[in-house]
Amino acid sequence: MKFEEKTLSKETIYKGKVIDVEKHFVELPDQQISYREIVKHNGAVAICAVTPENNVLLVKQYRKAMEKELLEIPAGKLEPGEDRESAAKRELEEETGYIANSLTLIGEVYGSPGFCNELISIYFADNLKKGNMKLDEDEFVENINYAIEDVEKAVNTRSISDAKTLIAFQYLLSNYNHSK
Amino acid sequence: MKFEEKTLSKETIYKGKVIDVEKHFVELPDQQISYREIVKHNGAVAICAVTPENNVLLVKQYRKAMEKELLEIPAGKLEPGEDRESAAKRELEEETGYIANSLTLIGEVYGSPGFCNELISIYFADNLKKGNMKLDEDEFVENINYAIEDVEKAVNTRSISDAKTLIAFQYLLSNYNHSK
Repeated sequence: MKFEEKTLSKETIYKGKVIDVEKHFVELPDQQISYREIVKHNGAVAICAVTPENNVLLVKQYRKAMEKELLEIPAGKLEPGEDRESAAKRELEEETGYIANSLTLIGEVYGSPGFCNELISIYFADNLKKGNMKLDEDEFVENINYAIEDVEKAVNTRSISDAKTLIAFQYLLSNYNHSK
Repeated sequence: MKFEEKTLSKETIYKGKVIDVEKHFVELPDQQISYREIVKHNGAVAICAVTPENNVLLVKQYRKAMEKELLEIPAGKLEPGEDRESAAKRELEEETGYIANSLTLIGEVYGSPGFCNELISIYFADNLKKGNMKLDEDEFVENINYAIEDVEKAVNTRSISDAKTLIAFQYLLSNYNHSK
């Protein structure tokens, strides 16, 4: 079976710094006419990084959309033309001051596929080196370290409320060599 | 440390059927003025359901934001005033024709916390009974069954490109009793 929604026309509702918003008028597979509200985003990267001391690097930051602080793995938007691995290394150093030489891809996922095309690449990294923190001018984060026991507890108590961070934590619990 | 972004003023950019879009002018923790683009969403539910034959119920559907088909666990938006467990049971029956009597919460996560307040509750269900499929009028899905081996392969080959589905698959691999 193959479903497709043919675009009849498009309308730009908003062009912004992080997102654009469009309305697409479509012909559904049964020939009915409807519309879809679409949020366009350039894409993002996130990094689940483990220090030589076996700490998982996290950042706590205020998220305006929820009007509260959220605990997340370091992450950020792709800059124009930037490749995903470079963006992940850049964001990790900017937000935590650590440098990753090599990255392992955990997964590439859409967080809100019903209306948004933001694709998040989630990487794992260890063998970190010390670099320099350098936050964006509108970015304020608190650095937090989790031991693997904290990761396990967070998953079991369902206290992680960020999708990419939960994916990274589940990956760590299944794949990361605790005795390393 | 406590970071907050004080709202100085708000502007509604768009009020739609699935999302509203707002622009919030904020005072950052260092007293600078900036703005955040916010997508408001009523919230969603998703269900990782396993049939008596040990099949995981999935739906393939066309996602206009990406202009492609995506394989996902059954999911949908909350209706006004609807509680999350009822919504999950309703969506499961509508999209797959199966009824779940009890649900186990896997997690509640924001898929795109940088700009969107959509909270997705992800549930696990087994002990399913047969009910009746009934799709929304603008909804077209193909039902697909995955055996647990297919779930494992999908995670290992990173072929799942939906965040809630990857979370559910990782949960299944860690928690579900294969010999049940």
